[in-house]
Amino acid sequence: MKILITAGPTREPIDPVRYIGNRSSGQMGAALADASLRAGYETTLILGPVSIPMPARVRRIDVETAAQMLDAVLREFPNHDLLIMAAAVADYRPKSVAKEKLGRHGTLTIECEATKDISAAANRMKRPDQRIVGYSLENDGAIDRARQKLHRKGLDLIVYNPVATMNAASIDSHLIYPDGRDEKLGSRSKAAFADILLERAVALFSA
Amino acid sequence: MKILITAGPTREPIDPVRYIGNRSSGQMGAALADASLRAGYETTLILGPVSIPMPARVRRIDVETAAQMLDAVLREFPNHDLLIMAAAVADYRPKSVAKEKLGRHGTLTIECEATKDISAAANRMKRPDQRIVGYSLENDGAIDRARQKLHRKGLDLIVYNPVATMNAASIDSHLIYPDGRDEKLGSRSKAAFADILLERAVALFSA
Repeated sequence: MKILITAGPTREPIDPVRYIGNRSSGQMGAALADASLRAGYETTLILGPVSIPMPARVRRIDVETAAQMLDAVLREFPNHDLLIMAAAVADYRPKSVAKEKLGRHGTLTIECEATKDISAAANRMKRPDQRIVGYSLENDGAIDRARQKLHRKGLDLIVYNPVATMNAASIDSHLIYPDGRDEKLGSRSKAAFADILLERAVALFSA
Repeated sequence: MKILITAGPTREPIDPVRYIGNRSSGQMGAALADASLRAGYETTLILGPVSIPMPARVRRIDVETAAQMLDAVLREFPNHDLLIMAAAVADYRPKSVAKEKLGRHGTLTIECEATKDISAAANRMKRPDQRIVGYSLENDGAIDRARQKLHRKGLDLIVYNPVATMNAASIDSHLIYPDGRDEKLGSRSKAAFADILLERAVALFSA
């Protein structure tokens, strides 16, 4: 079993100094990579800019933007069995990036465009022997939105978790399956959660 | 001598998940705090969100936004002799912060307004027995802009450094004084630069 994990935030440049970022710490990615390595799987981690340590034995591909993360996923997914997308990928990026640092003037308007959807792109290239697990970080109570996302993106499993999870040590999650099953895991440390998620994800191959 | 140092980036929230940030690593702040403590000065560090270690003995005040950094400077400056403003403070912040995570729609326009100028506010409260050192991170060759900033903000010394300095281990700088003196320091490690800057800043009190 070869496992590909995306984790961390992405940064979308505004100019050479400024960027739009998000509060993902990469803790979930570290926990998943650690769980996967302990279970004996070959593990590749595609990682946005984070500052926390990652397991030393993991094969690590560092990226910065959503576009770079997409490229890395498209390149790596064919060589892996399971893709777990735990990264908090930017949905938007500035339409144009200023070449020079923007000066201080009265106001600034940043026009943003949607980034390409990595789940959808991965789903289009998925072979019948591969599985994809996604995450859905939503405002409290928006579990229906996570369920819709699971179906729209053709995922095999989605982790619904509230916004408060981001940059926290624990995660309060539901696992949602395409057949309608819904497993409430409650609040757990990210390490304990990672072991369970990995077990459920590997079980998808014998379902 | 009591020294107050601002360092690191600030983050300006867009919604509970996303923010506008900048690439400041806090390395300059760590180097200045270390130099100041080694020289035997009482040292307070007002620090934006960074992930690198800071000297253990420093009195550290963590902030996130430009507004929080301004508040901390206004509160702390009266109890210090010297203020060194090495932080990369956001010039702009979103006019309004969304209470809930923004969904993915076609495009997004982020309207930003100027943040309050911390140098100017500190200068207004400065007593004759205090000194202020600023930084000016500019596009290559914009040393005139740094000189204008020195005069406009009433600083006692300004460090002009190019954008490439940000998040780098070294700094290629000029020190510019109100009397027209200009000292080109060239490229140095941030630790070596911090020792020199501190010496020049302390000399301002006997000038």
